[in-house]
Amino acid sequence: MVFEPGDGALVRRADRLAVEDPLEIRLESPTGASTLTETMRTPGNDTELVAGWLLAEGIIERAEDISQISYCVDAANGGDQRFNVVTANLRGPADERGRERMSEGRVGGTASIEALRAIGLPALSDGPRFAVSALSQLPELLQAGQRTFQVTGTVHGAALVDATGTVLIVREDVDRHNAVDKVVGWALLNGHMPLSDTALVVSGRISFEIVQKAAQAGIAMVVAVSGATSLAVALAEEIGMTLVGFVRGTSCAIYSGSARVLPG
Amino acid sequence: MVFEPGDGALVRRADRLAVEDPLEIRLESPTGASTLTETMRTPGNDTELVAGWLLAEGIIERAEDISQISYCVDAANGGDQRFNVVTANLRGPADERGRERMSEGRVGGTASIEALRAIGLPALSDGPRFAVSALSQLPELLQAGQRTFQVTGTVHGAALVDATGTVLIVREDVDRHNAVDKVVGWALLNGHMPLSDTALVVSGRISFEIVQKAAQAGIAMVVAVSGATSLAVALAEEIGMTLVGFVRGTSCAIYSGSARVLPG
Repeated sequence: MVFEPGDGALVRRADRLAVEDPLEIRLESPTGASTLTETMRTPGNDTELVAGWLLAEGIIERAEDISQISYCVDAANGGDQRFNVVTANLRGPADERGRERMSEGRVGGTASIEALRAIGLPALSDGPRFAVSALSQLPELLQAGQRTFQVTGTVHGAALVDATGTVLIVREDVDRHNAVDKVVGWALLNGHMPLSDTALVVSGRISFEIVQKAAQAGIAMVVAVSGATSLAVALAEEIGMTLVGFVRGTSCAIYSGSARVLPG
Repeated sequence: MVFEPGDGALVRRADRLAVEDPLEIRLESPTGASTLTETMRTPGNDTELVAGWLLAEGIIERAEDISQISYCVDAANGGDQRFNVVTANLRGPADERGRERMSEGRVGGTASIEALRAIGLPALSDGPRFAVSALSQLPELLQAGQRTFQVTGTVHGAALVDATGTVLIVREDVDRHNAVDKVVGWALLNGHMPLSDTALVVSGRISFEIVQKAAQAGIAMVVAVSGATSLAVALAEEIGMTLVGFVRGTSCAIYSGSARVLPG
């Protein structure tokens, strides 16, 4: 219902709501599946979301580490699929890493540069170079691909853009971290790795966790409509990632790695 | 560094970054403190953040449940305080609830209406009533109180507003959930409970978790600059909470509980 006080009348309209639903990610094991994490997400592209999340967490390193990602089948209800529970079957060392992390209770929430150093961060390539005039197009290209945003006005988006400025993929989610996991998962499952010549464009802020996810995917450049946080910039400087924020019209803020941003 | 391509020159400016730092919340026990949760937050008002979070999680119910909330003292480093670790000492049943939740591994992330029903949601009062003309002022009042936003352009804010439209408190954080925990914690620690005649104003979206936090604090009305998600509206309808979104100029979207919104 939209209220327009100007004419003193109640005006109703069928609002399209951004869908938010819980997703439980489980790891399959010989003794049954255990919960790795739970997230509130916008349904759709759940397989990509899980693949991207597993990569961001350092549990998998490549698509081949995944044996299968599937919705749960509810044996108690005649084998109905449950679309809010996804189970990952992993191979070899990835499977072991998943179990180890689960048993230690340290899945998700790596909250310090020291902890990331201990895990080991991937080395970034020279990465793509963008002229400022090309950068200034990116938020518009992202929004043009955000179909859910266009009807709800309230979901986050993430896009992968190649060095020529061509959008490879756009994904949306009520949670901005999930939107990033989805585009990275898409690249992983569709043979687009490595992402070393790709920029990640996000609709929100660049926080520590966004830099961490980009780094795990080998992405050397993150571009945002909003700004970057202190810890995001500290991590980006340490690993040589380019962070560009507040891309609005013909101006932007370059927080780190300015060598990848060209004048003109 | 801000790049202005118009004149072909690099223009540097001292960007003020929104500070993001991890905070570990611990529960004190006779055998030593254990971690309840970890969050990425903007430092400042950490005691309020912890108090508000404990209330939102249903671990405490009133200020008297808290014996002490303090920064950790690092015995190994000559008793230095560690400002990224806060320990809560709780009393009686609250302490037992905290331990129980920790041992069950179910702190944070209550992701379904069913789970909330099982915990038990507080009954909401009739709550405040706002004319649309008063509602339309709220985003501006929130932003006027957001000092960090004014210099960084990129942190979330939350405010409590009484029935006369007076702002009681504004708090900011890189995480929008933390901003809500901080204003609720402020109210709890400063004798402003119950919040039944107060509206919560938030700078971002109204997600399930925001409605959950408001409900645990007894707040009957949430007003947002952005929109509400599907699960947020479903929960608000179930408990009779008013959700108002997209408050922009003279229009807004009323998602639920429209009886608290008056024409004019």
